[in-house]
Amino acid sequence: MGSVHVRNLVQQVPEANLVAICDIRLEVAQKLADELGIERVVADYNELLQDESIEAVLIATSTDTHAFIMKDVANAGKHIFCEKPLALDLASIDDALAVVEKAGVKLQVGFNRRFDKSFQRVHKIVDSGEIGRPCILRITSRDPELPAMEFLRVSGGMFLDMTIHDFDMARFLLGDIEEVYAIGKILVSPELHEIGDVDTDVVTLKFANGAIGTIDNSRQAVYGYDQRLEVFCSNGIAMAANESEDTVIKGNPEGFHTSRIPHFFMNRYAPCYIEEIRQFIACVREDKPTPTTGEDGRLAVVLGHAAWRSVYENRPVKVSEFSPTNNGSID
Amino acid sequence: MGSVHVRNLVQQVPEANLVAICDIRLEVAQKLADELGIERVVADYNELLQDESIEAVLIATSTDTHAFIMKDVANAGKHIFCEKPLALDLASIDDALAVVEKAGVKLQVGFNRRFDKSFQRVHKIVDSGEIGRPCILRITSRDPELPAMEFLRVSGGMFLDMTIHDFDMARFLLGDIEEVYAIGKILVSPELHEIGDVDTDVVTLKFANGAIGTIDNSRQAVYGYDQRLEVFCSNGIAMAANESEDTVIKGNPEGFHTSRIPHFFMNRYAPCYIEEIRQFIACVREDKPTPTTGEDGRLAVVLGHAAWRSVYENRPVKVSEFSPTNNGSID
Amino acid sequence: MGSVHVRNLVQQVPEANLVAICDIRLEVAQKLADELGIERVVADYNELLQDESIEAVLIATSTDTHAFIMKDVANAGKHIFCEKPLALDLASIDDALAVVEKAGVKLQVGFNRRFDKSFQRVHKIVDSGEIGRPCILRITSRDPELPAMEFLRVSGGMFLDMTIHDFDMARFLLGDIEEVYAIGKILVSPELHEIGDVDTDVVTLKFANGAIGTIDNSRQAVYGYDQRLEVFCSNGIAMAANESEDTVIKGNPEGFHTSRIPHFFMNRYAPCYIEEIRQFIACVREDKPTPTTGEDGRLAVVLGHAAWRSVYENRPVKVSEFSPTNNGSID
Amino acid sequence: MGSVHVRNLVQQVPEANLVAICDIRLEVAQKLADELGIERVVADYNELLQDESIEAVLIATSTDTHAFIMKDVANAGKHIFCEKPLALDLASIDDALAVVEKAGVKLQVGFNRRFDKSFQRVHKIVDSGEIGRPCILRITSRDPELPAMEFLRVSGGMFLDMTIHDFDMARFLLGDIEEVYAIGKILVSPELHEIGDVDTDVVTLKFANGAIGTIDNSRQAVYGYDQRLEVFCSNGIAMAANESEDTVIKGNPEGFHTSRIPHFFMNRYAPCYIEEIRQFIACVREDKPTPTTGEDGRLAVVLGHAAWRSVYENRPVKVSEFSPTNNGSID
Repeated sequence: MGSVHVRNLVQQVPEANLVAICDIRLEVAQKLADELGIERVVADYNELLQDESIEAVLIATSTDTHAFIMKDVANAGKHIFCEKPLALDLASIDDALAVVEKAGVKLQVGFNRRFDKSFQRVHKIVDSGEIGRPCILRITSRDPELPAMEFLRVSGGMFLDMTIHDFDMARFLLGDIEEVYAIGKILVSPELHEIGDVDTDVVTLKFANGAIGTIDNSRQAVYGYDQRLEVFCSNGIAMAANESEDTVIKGNPEGFHTSRIPHFFMNRYAPCYIEEIRQFIACVREDKPTPTTGEDGRLAVVLGHAAWRSVYENRPVKVSEFSPTNNGSID
Repeated sequence: MGSVHVRNLVQQVPEANLVAICDIRLEVAQKLADELGIERVVADYNELLQDESIEAVLIATSTDTHAFIMKDVANAGKHIFCEKPLALDLASIDDALAVVEKAGVKLQVGFNRRFDKSFQRVHKIVDSGEIGRPCILRITSRDPELPAMEFLRVSGGMFLDMTIHDFDMARFLLGDIEEVYAIGKILVSPELHEIGDVDTDVVTLKFANGAIGTIDNSRQAVYGYDQRLEVFCSNGIAMAANESEDTVIKGNPEGFHTSRIPHFFMNRYAPCYIEEIRQFIACVREDKPTPTTGEDGRLAVVLGHAAWRSVYENRPVKVSEFSPTNNGSID
Repeated sequence: MGSVHVRNLVQQVPEANLVAICDIRLEVAQKLADELGIERVVADYNELLQDESIEAVLIATSTDTHAFIMKDVANAGKHIFCEKPLALDLASIDDALAVVEKAGVKLQVGFNRRFDKSFQRVHKIVDSGEIGRPCILRITSRDPELPAMEFLRVSGGMFLDMTIHDFDMARFLLGDIEEVYAIGKILVSPELHEIGDVDTDVVTLKFANGAIGTIDNSRQAVYGYDQRLEVFCSNGIAMAANESEDTVIKGNPEGFHTSRIPHFFMNRYAPCYIEEIRQFIACVREDKPTPTTGEDGRLAVVLGHAAWRSVYENRPVKVSEFSPTNNGSID
Repeated sequence: MGSVHVRNLVQQVPEANLVAICDIRLEVAQKLADELGIERVVADYNELLQDESIEAVLIATSTDTHAFIMKDVANAGKHIFCEKPLALDLASIDDALAVVEKAGVKLQVGFNRRFDKSFQRVHKIVDSGEIGRPCILRITSRDPELPAMEFLRVSGGMFLDMTIHDFDMARFLLGDIEEVYAIGKILVSPELHEIGDVDTDVVTLKFANGAIGTIDNSRQAVYGYDQRLEVFCSNGIAMAANESEDTVIKGNPEGFHTSRIPHFFMNRYAPCYIEEIRQFIACVREDKPTPTTGEDGRLAVVLGHAAWRSVYENRPVKVSEFSPTNNGSID
């Protein structure tokens, strides 16, 4: 993800000025810097924190390092764009968010899908009230194939790595979620048994506004990266369908055949990665609130934990079980 | 076609009372009559013409008999529903239409497609003016496979047997046609060389209202009976897409696969055959003009002849070349 | 529903011979019989049970009478087609099914949707194994508007009146269901508070084969009778989309506009009502098992009760809680 | 168009090294050069022709200057990418192509649409033979609105400015064209009468391989930039549908509503402008023939003239009327 953001910043976001790349694998950073003409490369991000000319830092490190880096960056008075999830445990998140708040710097979390043109328009239609009161939200979000086991092992599992995007999308579209019921299964990748993860899930949500939501996920959609949603309302419906690799239709005696959908999330959401950075830069420049806040990042993780607890205990789990004063995540 | 109309009349048009079937192959008529509980069967239609209780006659005989039967029926004072084409030569048509007019009976021609719900709605949208002035009409009409050679031999050829429907549809949607330019080719069925017919054509039309039309036809659409049209106007467009055998979509690593379109014109237009008869019965009952008149039937044949002449002479042909005073069809 | 079946039997199922109509409102039956040429009309079905020439009886009375009529018909040795639900309480169903079984007559339950061509093909694709192991089933089933309150009052509520079709469809497509979690809400029709019903629900299912299902229902889909489903499998997906009133697409500066979907279940599923009766007649004639059995009828009701219990107790409910030896339905 | 190519070269085609911009409006070139960090700017292209380090020149000037610039560039031994049309008159084109050929430099013409992913795939499907022999080609190509009159005045008219793309696409998909019949009308923009141009046309093509083609164009498609085509073959069909601004579907009591198609050709074909330059650079680097040659450029202009002649003389016009030895374009 880091190199995607670097490329976008250099090639697509001229309003930003990328001054340095940090990577503990210095040679990786150097190679990218050479290619893109970036002058400064460091292995230790602390060097950059002392540079007063740097206004903002984009964090795309491994999840377990997000929280302490955020704190260091915030303490150095620089604005933060941090990839999701903020952290896997809520205590670290709460700790980091407290430091960010105290430092008064801006924080944007990398929920790229909020910046998709189709989801944005669904949001706008629903928000306008023209199709009435939201009743049912359906999100289908399926990956084409299982990531590497070494990644999965530290990912927090399906609900914190994958469904987290859908939790955030659900909140973006319909607001606060009060209760989660989740079913998780291993149906296609038996190797997940050894790490306690799942490859298929269905999550049901109760929203504060009365609406009901349902999310379904799979790690193996052989026909591509399946990303659809619909908001059913009292006076109409707004849906976002899949994008297609091209618009070709072939007809033959078997019927009609349309093209595959994109197979890779970076292709599908490429414009979103640019747009989220553009908006972050604009928020910093114009001193506006960020579109995806630390609280958004925190709540998506809460919902991920709630989903895991629901699977383990086979019961609907209230989000309030994870309130700041009752912050027990499951081990 | 005759048996389709008989079944529809008995089972779907209770407002009609089918009293007799006539077929020179009496045993065919008898079998159908037995099955459907129709009491009277004759081999000679003249018997029925003397029956004063009979108000109307539906003619679905071979094309070469349409004209003289129409005249006999008209002279007997009975209303007429006649299958298309009225006849292959214009002289016979003009002769029959004169008799019909003098007799004062109603005549409806079997242009079933005008009664299709989708084409009807396109007509209504265009007619309402809501999408502005018609500019371009596109009709795609392709059969799944070549009919039997013995039928083709007496059919009048592609423009008089097949395109005739599209000529009528063009007139239904955009009104009078002034000029025709046609290209006809044998691209898939070399056996057509011996009878001078074609299997593929594109026809271009100039309408009196200034619009331009284009029709394309084929005798071999392996993916089904392809029936689409669009009217492009100055403020919008109205299109009718194909119907589908079902709504199933299958996705797999090759892409997405939808169902075939109907392969048989009687399936695709089944509701139209019922609706055209219903409207004919209503016109008789309520003494209203029929929706597809003798003049409609005549003009579609004129356009078919104009298309053939255009192919033979490789030039645009004016419809006025076939005016009543200049009625030379090509030999 | 009764008159729909009567019309279909007379007009569309010639292999059946409808000899009599029974209705306690004798004048209603008489009117229909006159229209369709049916000779015998009775107010008391017991008269018909004594007629040895009658082979089978179609029951389309109000739900509370199904069980005792089924018993009487079975005891008279006649085959039974019964509308769904068999009854609202499981004790009555079990009682009636025992009598039917002892009598050795055939019983088919009116789950019409199983006979839809699109759902049939999805079933066939999934069953063939060509797209692998079923993982996720999604059913969307939404009515255009709330039925009359007087009907709703005795309907058994949303899960037993409406979702019951989806429970049966889920079983048809993926087999046995082990657990149900349901959320039901009043979001559009506050008048439902007085009768304890809901207008919006989402139901999550665990199948015996490991798959997960999710159903969503609403009583108010203003855009029409929304009937979609998809089976997501390990090697592909099979979906059934909505049918459309016509195939017209209108384009204007606002975008493209397609037609509405059918608004009335009898239109949407018209061919299914004919097909289910045809198959019933064939089962009787050829002494084959019926496609929708008494057990299918019973299990759909069990699932409806399980859904209601899930809503009341806000927990996933095992179907085994309603096993024959643990048959407590909720009061 | 020039600035689009400059931006693409700098930002999207790293394999090229853009060393200078030439524009007789030097301040325009300077502004763009400053923005993109290009060091050299000239008002007279002859300065650049003397620079031996320059390998290739992209010509995006007004059409009337293409031919003499091409000759100068060719004589300087540099490869050429030239925007379409090469020129409006065939004599100038033939003259320039002779110089290019003698100089032995490469020439690519800017028929951007050949590089569209959907059209490419249609081409590939047809070319593979999997759907049999091509029979009918349909191209719909409609602009959202009329360009400025000052541009139209020098554009060569609709067939040379707009249809020229479709002529090239037709040749790309089905090969040599032998005859053209065109109808051109003023239906929406009466101001075109003063310059003898049209706003609506339908063109029919006879291909050397026997297939028939039909193109329709309009200058006023209010619903967007309508770009569709289909190749109907003896064993199937391949179609390219329009792209959509997003994938949102809104449903309400009026029906379902999808998004607009792109309204601006630069948005619709943005990836093609990059891809054509990439391929040009690769052809220069790897000494391969260019994908769109001078002959392609010439023949598209020939077809444009043939269409105009067809309109003026209301007859099908053979391409051979414009053979090198019979090169009379119309005045």
